[in-house]
Amino acid sequence: MSGLFITFEGPEGAGKTTVLQEMKKILTAEGLQVTATREPGGIDIAEQIREVILNENNTLMDPKTEALLYAAARRQHLVEKVKPALEQGNIVLCDRFIDSSLAYQGYARGLGIDEVLSINQFAIGDMMPHVTIYFSIDPEEGLKRIDANGSREKNRLDLEKLSFHTKVQEGYRELMKRFPERFHSVDAAQSKDLVVQDVQKVINEALKKIQL
Amino acid sequence: MSGLFITFEGPEGAGKTTVLQEMKKILTAEGLQVTATREPGGIDIAEQIREVILNENNTLMDPKTEALLYAAARRQHLVEKVKPALEQGNIVLCDRFIDSSLAYQGYARGLGIDEVLSINQFAIGDMMPHVTIYFSIDPEEGLKRIDANGSREKNRLDLEKLSFHTKVQEGYRELMKRFPERFHSVDAAQSKDLVVQDVQKVINEALKKIQL
Repeated sequence: MSGLFITFEGPEGAGKTTVLQEMKKILTAEGLQVTATREPGGIDIAEQIREVILNENNTLMDPKTEALLYAAARRQHLVEKVKPALEQGNIVLCDRFIDSSLAYQGYARGLGIDEVLSINQFAIGDMMPHVTIYFSIDPEEGLKRIDANGSREKNRLDLEKLSFHTKVQEGYRELMKRFPERFHSVDAAQSKDLVVQDVQKVINEALKKIQL
Repeated sequence: MSGLFITFEGPEGAGKTTVLQEMKKILTAEGLQVTATREPGGIDIAEQIREVILNENNTLMDPKTEALLYAAARRQHLVEKVKPALEQGNIVLCDRFIDSSLAYQGYARGLGIDEVLSINQFAIGDMMPHVTIYFSIDPEEGLKRIDANGSREKNRLDLEKLSFHTKVQEGYRELMKRFPERFHSVDAAQSKDLVVQDVQKVINEALKKIQL
């Protein structure tokens, strides 16, 4: 694997998606090959799996069934999109990846970080991200931003109560303790320009360490 | 869990399905509560997952994606059908379960028994079958039976070459070594009546050991 695999993580409303697109522009302007993606990433099989997960009629879905389906969709997106891009030496910027499952389902939903890690290790094999950028923001502030952003439709997770988002934050903090080498936290409460600057620093550091 | 959870395993054409239905009749006639099932067992969510697995257009499906989808469908079938039946004290006869994934995907497809076991342990938790009846038959003989049985449409697995079926048999043998307490092998090359008698003996032994 010769590319650089970078994932963006954090709570809803932290600005991950906006900053990721901004970083793609900046890195591309520097002459780098960049693949920006998010699961299910337009991969047909992963989209079909996503449809089962999000089907509103599936009220009986067990949390472990859901976790396995997310891992299955992740696998397919990885094999069809992330891996080929990395093999071409690209920088892959992925909006949410394994740590979202660990924080949301493993920790906040109570399935257990180790348990959810185990099925995701099966799914991704040795393709853990090289670098994970955590968008650190007070959960309440994140929720306020979503409320203020009329252009973005609220989704099911946005509507969960604050206590759940606080648990997600705790989950991410636990992951940062477990994976201190991989995780880099940026203060997402800053202005967008400052967040972009901080993210750029992290990526530049990572680029120095590898030969793309 | 107060019921008795029995799974039927073995290669294609070994007569599992026929004998399972026969056993249901016999046990029901003895006044026992019996649930006969097979994955996805009419569970809506599991059927939706099955559709993704079997969709002929999904030629790019990765073997690990498939294994995770089977585990997801298994979880849902377990939660919605097997577990409630066992909690009511029923005997549950299930046509294929975890060991099919271990033998077919873990061993014969080369994903690794331990790896596939790990995601399936996540899926089923502590609900391993109490008893697993292995229908032992020469793979070639099993395939011949399928050929001779015009009423049964050949499926994708039937058409795999004999070498694959031989690998599946090796996989099951490996599982019998790993789980000697749980596995009971019956000679499925005998006449149906003799196979039924042997299966009945195994189930009666199991019933003696528990208080339904």
